[in-house]
Amino acid sequence: MKRYALLVGYDGTHLSGFQRQGKGERTVQGLLENAAKEVFGVPTRIVGSGRTDAGVHAMGQVCHLDAETAIPAEKLAVCLNAFLPPEIRVQISVEAGEGFDCTRGAKKKTYRYSLYTAACEMPVLERFSVYVKGELDVSRMKEAAELLLGEHDFRAFCAAGSSAKTSVRTLYAVNVEHRPFPLYTGYSIEVTGNGFLYNMVRILAGELVAIGQGKETASLQKALNGGSRSLLGKTMPAKGLTLMNVDYGVPLFGSRRED
Amino acid sequence: MKRYALLVGYDGTHLSGFQRQGKGERTVQGLLENAAKEVFGVPTRIVGSGRTDAGVHAMGQVCHLDAETAIPAEKLAVCLNAFLPPEIRVQISVEAGEGFDCTRGAKKKTYRYSLYTAACEMPVLERFSVYVKGELDVSRMKEAAELLLGEHDFRAFCAAGSSAKTSVRTLYAVNVEHRPFPLYTGYSIEVTGNGFLYNMVRILAGELVAIGQGKETASLQKALNGGSRSLLGKTMPAKGLTLMNVDYGVPLFGSRRED
Repeated sequence: MKRYALLVGYDGTHLSGFQRQGKGERTVQGLLENAAKEVFGVPTRIVGSGRTDAGVHAMGQVCHLDAETAIPAEKLAVCLNAFLPPEIRVQISVEAGEGFDCTRGAKKKTYRYSLYTAACEMPVLERFSVYVKGELDVSRMKEAAELLLGEHDFRAFCAAGSSAKTSVRTLYAVNVEHRPFPLYTGYSIEVTGNGFLYNMVRILAGELVAIGQGKETASLQKALNGGSRSLLGKTMPAKGLTLMNVDYGVPLFGSRRED
Repeated sequence: MKRYALLVGYDGTHLSGFQRQGKGERTVQGLLENAAKEVFGVPTRIVGSGRTDAGVHAMGQVCHLDAETAIPAEKLAVCLNAFLPPEIRVQISVEAGEGFDCTRGAKKKTYRYSLYTAACEMPVLERFSVYVKGELDVSRMKEAAELLLGEHDFRAFCAAGSSAKTSVRTLYAVNVEHRPFPLYTGYSIEVTGNGFLYNMVRILAGELVAIGQGKETASLQKALNGGSRSLLGKTMPAKGLTLMNVDYGVPLFGSRRED
């Protein structure tokens, strides 16, 4: 048996999230496990770096699997893709070092939340970003983003029902970017941290949007001192969220990955 | 009766193009005319600046209609949107000057063709851009793009069955841009001209891609001297094409439009 690491991308629009569920649910794990069974001829468990919710996308999800196969590691991607629907693609497959664990080994993750402002919804933007009415004050958002940096108790940024042991997390970067176009302004909030609570990025994005719309940062500051969920704005929709990268502290997929 | 101009965007993925067709076909014109009938209570013809093919998208299509209505011009957008599927949105509605004709008045149009190179297809890019294998030589593409500028007989850039009276068109700008990301490189070919033949942008994009992959520009030069379609590469898929802007020489939709 050898362990292989997979770099996986998906358009989550019509997927029920990462984690395998009951029959009939189309999940990333379930569809990858179905494909792996076809390729290896035996049931094969797929482990992911973490779950993503229904509707959330990924460009850089990382998974691992164990298999006994004559297929060269770098060809596993194309073999698995042959049995996957087009909305999921294994971008790169490599043999992982002994003891590699894509869940426990993950040191940092980067998510991007995408939104836009315009006169009304724009169909070509709607699939992967979220329409927000009215312009946003980006300088306010950038200032608020700095408050989030470092280690905090993020319990206020967590949907009810989370099973995480601790709600302390460290954020290494929170970058708010905007780009004006003739018909709309695109915004992205890119967050890198050592881990994320359930719905944390979507709640964080919602609060930054509220601040961009004029809300004072007092609630955010209280929330960061272990305050309650009710201090913060609404949870933003899943479709604006994309898992961009999982960092293991070593280049896992060759130079192209860690550019 | 007053004439109104509409700025229309659509995700063409599941649309059968702009032009109204038989029952059961979902077209931009057909869906807009259905919505207009609901809003005005009478059958209302929608005229577009030009047709777009099945699967082609738009951010800046312009249409006009004539109606007798008490609804203020700027509210027509939201009223029409109430009867449109989410993949079509009227971004802005205005009262158009007397004699405005969105087809004949169009002085320039801008289309964008989007593609990307990566290790394999990336699901989050697949809806609005086209996967091309291997890196492209952008400097070659930019040089070739300059050959296209100005007035030429573009008959070689036209699918069979075109009914255009003349195949002479003027291109004012052909901009090839690329942007490298960790997992892929995105490319856009943005073309502004006084008009386009059937499939012209998709054929032109296909030839620029072929040149980016190493094809000599001799065929392109022959094609520009009234040569035949067979000199050029394949027609690129519809989903990479977006109608970005129609220019009437005057600001039609207020300052925001012509930024």
